[in-house]
Amino acid sequence: MIRLNKHPSGRHFLQIPGPSPVPDRILRAISLPTIDHRGPEFGVLGKKVVTGMQQVFQTRHPVAIYPASGTGAWEAALVNTMSPGDGVLMFETGHFATLWQKMALKLGLEPEFLAVPGTDAATGLPTAWRHGVSAELIEQRLRKDTQQRIQAVCVVHNETSTGVTSDIAAVRRAIDAAGHPALLMVDTISGLASADYRHDEWGVDVTISGSQKGLMLPPGISFNALSPKALDRSKGARLPRAYWGWDEIVDMSASGFWPYTPNTNLLYGLSEALDMLLEQGLPSVFARHKRWSEGTRAAVRAWGLPIQCADEQLHSPVLTGVITPAGVDADALRKLIHDRFDLSLGTGLGKVKGRMFRIGHLGDCNDLTLIATLSGVEMGLKLAGVPLAKSGVVAAMEYFSATPQAPSTS
Amino acid sequence: MIRLNKHPSGRHFLQIPGPSPVPDRILRAISLPTIDHRGPEFGVLGKKVVTGMQQVFQTRHPVAIYPASGTGAWEAALVNTMSPGDGVLMFETGHFATLWQKMALKLGLEPEFLAVPGTDAATGLPTAWRHGVSAELIEQRLRKDTQQRIQAVCVVHNETSTGVTSDIAAVRRAIDAAGHPALLMVDTISGLASADYRHDEWGVDVTISGSQKGLMLPPGISFNALSPKALDRSKGARLPRAYWGWDEIVDMSASGFWPYTPNTNLLYGLSEALDMLLEQGLPSVFARHKRWSEGTRAAVRAWGLPIQCADEQLHSPVLTGVITPAGVDADALRKLIHDRFDLSLGTGLGKVKGRMFRIGHLGDCNDLTLIATLSGVEMGLKLAGVPLAKSGVVAAMEYFSATPQAPSTS
Amino acid sequence: MIRLNKHPSGRHFLQIPGPSPVPDRILRAISLPTIDHRGPEFGVLGKKVVTGMQQVFQTRHPVAIYPASGTGAWEAALVNTMSPGDGVLMFETGHFATLWQKMALKLGLEPEFLAVPGTDAATGLPTAWRHGVSAELIEQRLRKDTQQRIQAVCVVHNETSTGVTSDIAAVRRAIDAAGHPALLMVDTISGLASADYRHDEWGVDVTISGSQKGLMLPPGISFNALSPKALDRSKGARLPRAYWGWDEIVDMSASGFWPYTPNTNLLYGLSEALDMLLEQGLPSVFARHKRWSEGTRAAVRAWGLPIQCADEQLHSPVLTGVITPAGVDADALRKLIHDRFDLSLGTGLGKVKGRMFRIGHLGDCNDLTLIATLSGVEMGLKLAGVPLAKSGVVAAMEYFSATPQAPSTS
Amino acid sequence: MIRLNKHPSGRHFLQIPGPSPVPDRILRAISLPTIDHRGPEFGVLGKKVVTGMQQVFQTRHPVAIYPASGTGAWEAALVNTMSPGDGVLMFETGHFATLWQKMALKLGLEPEFLAVPGTDAATGLPTAWRHGVSAELIEQRLRKDTQQRIQAVCVVHNETSTGVTSDIAAVRRAIDAAGHPALLMVDTISGLASADYRHDEWGVDVTISGSQKGLMLPPGISFNALSPKALDRSKGARLPRAYWGWDEIVDMSASGFWPYTPNTNLLYGLSEALDMLLEQGLPSVFARHKRWSEGTRAAVRAWGLPIQCADEQLHSPVLTGVITPAGVDADALRKLIHDRFDLSLGTGLGKVKGRMFRIGHLGDCNDLTLIATLSGVEMGLKLAGVPLAKSGVVAAMEYFSATPQAPSTS
Repeated sequence: MIRLNKHPSGRHFLQIPGPSPVPDRILRAISLPTIDHRGPEFGVLGKKVVTGMQQVFQTRHPVAIYPASGTGAWEAALVNTMSPGDGVLMFETGHFATLWQKMALKLGLEPEFLAVPGTDAATGLPTAWRHGVSAELIEQRLRKDTQQRIQAVCVVHNETSTGVTSDIAAVRRAIDAAGHPALLMVDTISGLASADYRHDEWGVDVTISGSQKGLMLPPGISFNALSPKALDRSKGARLPRAYWGWDEIVDMSASGFWPYTPNTNLLYGLSEALDMLLEQGLPSVFARHKRWSEGTRAAVRAWGLPIQCADEQLHSPVLTGVITPAGVDADALRKLIHDRFDLSLGTGLGKVKGRMFRIGHLGDCNDLTLIATLSGVEMGLKLAGVPLAKSGVVAAMEYFSATPQAPSTS
Repeated sequence: MIRLNKHPSGRHFLQIPGPSPVPDRILRAISLPTIDHRGPEFGVLGKKVVTGMQQVFQTRHPVAIYPASGTGAWEAALVNTMSPGDGVLMFETGHFATLWQKMALKLGLEPEFLAVPGTDAATGLPTAWRHGVSAELIEQRLRKDTQQRIQAVCVVHNETSTGVTSDIAAVRRAIDAAGHPALLMVDTISGLASADYRHDEWGVDVTISGSQKGLMLPPGISFNALSPKALDRSKGARLPRAYWGWDEIVDMSASGFWPYTPNTNLLYGLSEALDMLLEQGLPSVFARHKRWSEGTRAAVRAWGLPIQCADEQLHSPVLTGVITPAGVDADALRKLIHDRFDLSLGTGLGKVKGRMFRIGHLGDCNDLTLIATLSGVEMGLKLAGVPLAKSGVVAAMEYFSATPQAPSTS
Repeated sequence: MIRLNKHPSGRHFLQIPGPSPVPDRILRAISLPTIDHRGPEFGVLGKKVVTGMQQVFQTRHPVAIYPASGTGAWEAALVNTMSPGDGVLMFETGHFATLWQKMALKLGLEPEFLAVPGTDAATGLPTAWRHGVSAELIEQRLRKDTQQRIQAVCVVHNETSTGVTSDIAAVRRAIDAAGHPALLMVDTISGLASADYRHDEWGVDVTISGSQKGLMLPPGISFNALSPKALDRSKGARLPRAYWGWDEIVDMSASGFWPYTPNTNLLYGLSEALDMLLEQGLPSVFARHKRWSEGTRAAVRAWGLPIQCADEQLHSPVLTGVITPAGVDADALRKLIHDRFDLSLGTGLGKVKGRMFRIGHLGDCNDLTLIATLSGVEMGLKLAGVPLAKSGVVAAMEYFSATPQAPSTS
Repeated sequence: MIRLNKHPSGRHFLQIPGPSPVPDRILRAISLPTIDHRGPEFGVLGKKVVTGMQQVFQTRHPVAIYPASGTGAWEAALVNTMSPGDGVLMFETGHFATLWQKMALKLGLEPEFLAVPGTDAATGLPTAWRHGVSAELIEQRLRKDTQQRIQAVCVVHNETSTGVTSDIAAVRRAIDAAGHPALLMVDTISGLASADYRHDEWGVDVTISGSQKGLMLPPGISFNALSPKALDRSKGARLPRAYWGWDEIVDMSASGFWPYTPNTNLLYGLSEALDMLLEQGLPSVFARHKRWSEGTRAAVRAWGLPIQCADEQLHSPVLTGVITPAGVDADALRKLIHDRFDLSLGTGLGKVKGRMFRIGHLGDCNDLTLIATLSGVEMGLKLAGVPLAKSGVVAAMEYFSATPQAPSTS
């Protein structure tokens, strides 16, 4: 059987912003024998996971579940709603927003990529990558689109490359204020089931998500939560589509089945994850992530290093980006920490490559896991010769001691 | 944890033509902890599975591995090679050939659907659904395509809905004899690693396959094996594509990584499956399936029921379709057998719905599993009032006793 | 990881009379992470399994659970109740009764080994090994023991070496009729949770059992169900004991803990097994085993081979012993069947070695598993040149078709 | 399926001195299907684990493997070598030495319990519980035993209740210096595969060990490593024995089988553990534990708390006992830490109950796991109001940073 850890002993610390550590219960569930995806037992499973995901998305409308990565669900959102050459307003918040925009180009759309302009004085990094979506800029742009060429506004809720969580309700208000009919499509691949997310209340038309983050599953399942308006729009959309087509998948999965072979064993895991999350209550889940993110930031501040997210209100509950001092290659640091302390951290992506690393604090974690993670980072920073103001680990211990986890709501 | 078998006791017999029963070794492998898909351990895994799949496809050329069902790999083959409105010559061998043709339509292609004409006198079923691809009809059609509007010939190697395995080398000879530049694209989703399949030797340009059949994995991974000609053709193909794009996935997976998040835990299973299959040797694997298929047919003949595949040379090593007598609803029979004997059989699909059922004999099976399966069918047929000429179970026991399994070649 | 099946493909058929096939749910449960056996979560588990085992033994009195094989629980029964040189009346029903008697000798007791005398005319095998415990002989012997030197009557309920299930209530009546104070100690290692067993109602003082039979667990846990009289007797018993001592283990496990480190992961499995068995209802479990045993005997009778159990009333619901014709080495036959059909059968033990083999039909089985098993035996018998009257497999199919499984009672 | 962690999220930190955290590879291995313990595949497994355990004990002589807890292996050592009323010289090093001595009493032996006398001034704890075995006291006592009533010297190598590792070679030298024929029997249940241990070189006659510590398995397997002298002595020993009898188990397990049903699934785990340990090399394993123990002690010293082991040379590589200040109930502290930080620590046992707790640093751990553990302790101590001199976590980070893990030797 494959060897998964070259380290001589102990459990690997997987503290990247997804895949997150998968709980033992879920790993056992996905190892149960595969069943007939057309048989009676499957239908029960299928209905359960669709219904459960509606609760997680906080929606009463259909959720399409794909046997695919999150990138596939991005594509599904676009090909179901758009026609060749359609304008799409996207917003640069980091690497994943950029990848989505590149996908729109590949699919023959005409994305326009808004961004907060400028470069951050202190770090030399793009300002856009340290802040969230500007609803104001979106509103301004939509107001100018008098011919309504823009068919959708596409934004990333929790930008995994930076650790900034944007205000989605504000984007909806901006669209409405502009009186624009564009769909609102939101990627919360890394936000769902960690950060509060309200598909219906926030007026989102298509929400994209994936399995390997807050849902605590291995990668391989992704989602589109829909609005009636999105479903309606899809009827006239002319981008070719088959695998991603909402029509068949939405109809069939209402009865617990799929138009093609679903990802049976990962759906076992999804069923187990839903049991865990819903039993505990989403508010507890959100509170837990918020607490971890605050403990992590306490550590980073104690070290005296800048946090990638420059806007206090928008700190992600899922991950924290840490900017390394000029001259310190963040990836060399990550390698040192991996080799020495068996800890995986997230790399800097795209425009911040080498300048920052990312600490994941999501999913099946707890206080001690995070302190261990922070200790690996702290030891690594010191070994790399980075001067630290104070011990971040001590700061995190102080935070976690002083701030008990609220009890589960269920 | 989810309950997977409503029967009071014992192991379910999953004898549909896929998903096939997943070996315990593989189930344990997919339950290992998820790792960072950008980390050093992943690269080793990634390279291993790509290289191993080349051996299984019998190709020296690239293999793209998708986190998606087989249906996705069909789409990948088309969108990477075709432009809107392109002609595609497809061949009706059954339900899956039909679905692929419908997909081509959805994607904006112009499929032409060849078929052996007529209706079978004895059963009233379409002749095309009891026979294989006619290389002769293909050659005739291509010779007429003097303007070369046909960009690809698409055929199903092992038609899962009928149990007919077509001669792919003959199709290649037909294309060559017609002097036609069309690509040859072949679906062997249910044939790979059960029936002999030679991507390079047979001159296939794109082979499509999936994980949940001969590879003995849960569903969720699919494949495109490519030829240099296919890769070259993809450069000019204008169907929009992103998730399925060969360019990035082929380049990156040569170094063991993927352009988006791969299906890590199922890849653990693929690694284990490759160990099992390649250690044993593909010839042994093919011989094993051939033997099971012969034992199964011995049983069906003893019962006196017609086999869906009417061409002795083309009997599938993977499954056997059994036609029920007029007036016997094959699905009611399947339900009786499932409820009473905890055995899942494949349903009749499309034009043969209710008229036949399918017995899977693939993957992690053995003689006793198949005899058990045949006994469930025999008891079910009798309980349904179907008169049987003789005991098929006795016939199968005679066959399996008289025909020892050849030893593994490794 | 260890390779467990030298056969090239498929699932091994483990049809020995224990260990029985372990359900997937239980295998997953025993693989959960080990916890602190002194911590709060353990206490919940400990109490659950003790209480559940009381239901399975049908007793209101304490059950001691040992991290040990069934052989250990035999020893526990003796060392807790006996003093050096004590007389014990044991009854020869087969190999396991013989082993228990040898153990009594080793422990310094004076076992007397009663048996039905004589040799079976047809087979040349000892009559005692084809019949059950004779309550009459026991009563006669006890009546002669006017000085009450006999401290215990020890019998095997379900003799695993022969497939004979003795009438325990009759033994109790015999002891009472003789007015003798001896304890009644019963081994139902292979009978519990397959054959009806009533510790309290039948007046048993110590019942011995183990995990790897009807409880569907791997080996490694064993049990002593106690009566107040047995507990009282243990206070004066002078055989040295520590590990097996009831005093500490009974006291502590009432609160869910053990005096030494318990077998944590197997207890996870026991918890899961109890969920499965009690949810379904013991009467259903017993009915299922009875049905399998009748189907199996239908096959053996069709072959025309003698069944080891010569007493129709006492046929075991757990296993069936099959006597091979003179000149046919039963172990050579078993090897042939194992090598050729990946089926494990039980060997003949002790006085019947080489003359018979045993078919287990217990635990996590179903009709098709048993038909597969019988087909392996039938093909093996034919390959070994044994003339068979008729097909036993056909006979079993007829029985199972004609006799539906009663629905679960829960 | 059973719920194993009442905490809302994350992996439990099991940092008691056994059971130690079980690696995922081993948990998967023990969940493989149970096989026939009399079949051919079992024999290969059986021989492998016996041979492997000889390497781990560093012996060429037989090793008996019991399906039982370590307590059972204590009993095995005594009942195989002793006769009723035999004198045994035991040495009080802590709770487990005391339990073993109580067992000797229960078994009808006459243990004499030597101890370093006195009470520790600083802590009020027994001096004997802060130090190791005194070879000098043993030699003095044996010299006085001119009639050789003492049949064995029994000592604990790694006293799990205190964290003191005694010098076994010195005990052998003492016995030899006294010219005394007593057997040397050593409990290294918690030392094996963590601390260097040399059965042959140190002249040990019986070594007792168990599965759930350095071998990284769940509890349920235990061991007796033997010397020719011990085997010889067992022939005349008159304590009754059956389950524990070396004769049968040693003979049979040489061919890979057991006289009664072995603990099959845990033996799968043992096979996997041996692969892990021997591949890495025992010197690496010992070095790893030594390093962790030094890092842990650095933390305790920084806090300013006394370490239970008062002898610098004898600090255990497996665990560290920490004495709480007068007035601080160590068990209340442990409960606080468990409830708040999901961390299990070892309780104070016997004479030190409530006065100390134990940190396990053994088995499948790594630097970050231990820092996490120390952080849980540090936060707990502060929350309990214990004044700490400095941050132990910072001290441990300094130690682990400055002291790289030596590379694996294999």
